[in-house]
Amino acid sequence: MIVRKLSEVQGSDRHIHSKGWDSVRMLLRDDKMGFSFHITTIHAGAELHMHYKNHLESVYCISGKGEIEDKATGQVHAIEAGTMYALNLHDQHTLRAFDEPMVMACVFNPPVTGAEVHDESGAYPALAE
Amino acid sequence: MIVRKLSEVQGSDRHIHSKGWDSVRMLLRDDKMGFSFHITTIHAGAELHMHYKNHLESVYCISGKGEIEDKATGQVHAIEAGTMYALNLHDQHTLRAFDEPMVMACVFNPPVTGAEVHDESGAYPALAE
Repeated sequence: MIVRKLSEVQGSDRHIHSKGWDSVRMLLRDDKMGFSFHITTIHAGAELHMHYKNHLESVYCISGKGEIEDKATGQVHAIEAGTMYALNLHDQHTLRAFDEPMVMACVFNPPVTGAEVHDESGAYPALAE
Repeated sequence: MIVRKLSEVQGSDRHIHSKGWDSVRMLLRDDKMGFSFHITTIHAGAELHMHYKNHLESVYCISGKGEIEDKATGQVHAIEAGTMYALNLHDQHTLRAFDEPMVMACVFNPPVTGAEVHDESGAYPALAE
């Protein structure tokens, strides 16, 4: 059994910071769960363009408000506490946080590796390229 | 892209009720994410004995307080908002919620199927048998 507290992982090398967001990796590939699990904060006012070509991701909003734009359809979905979105089609999307940070519980399949995250930490948005 | 709100799934056939807990299945196997994602509430005062022989599960506490006992070691870990535990060894465990409900974000690998949950909804604790 693995037990970890958010406060313990914050500030460690599993806590990744980038422009407009930061992410606390509670579970990575090495934990051998078959997925990774991150508590990611989208900073207030941030707008992020993202495209995970190699991963499926689900995101559950714990707190905050914002929106996600599906680039394939142009549709915009409101996000608030209790909203989940799943990028089952590797969907290109734009994520916007409004006046307060959005705290999100994120699951990646296949699991993110620490090394991959470290290499690409600034490149999450750039994965669209 | 799949977008669902907790409030929309509550009360649907994806919202499973059992003794001491209920679970809102935000993502099931049919969603083809390779995992399932549930918002599960452990009711105040509940004590649950569980053993998922066929699944790996991670659980992140969004709110509430309680504890988890690892049956293999006897060790008891406090649970509060921000605590995550992962049953990477299919760990037998006892989960207890204290004076308020514990709201948990749960990930299962392989994903739970709706039918499986329906058949076994009362049998989560009994999976230990």
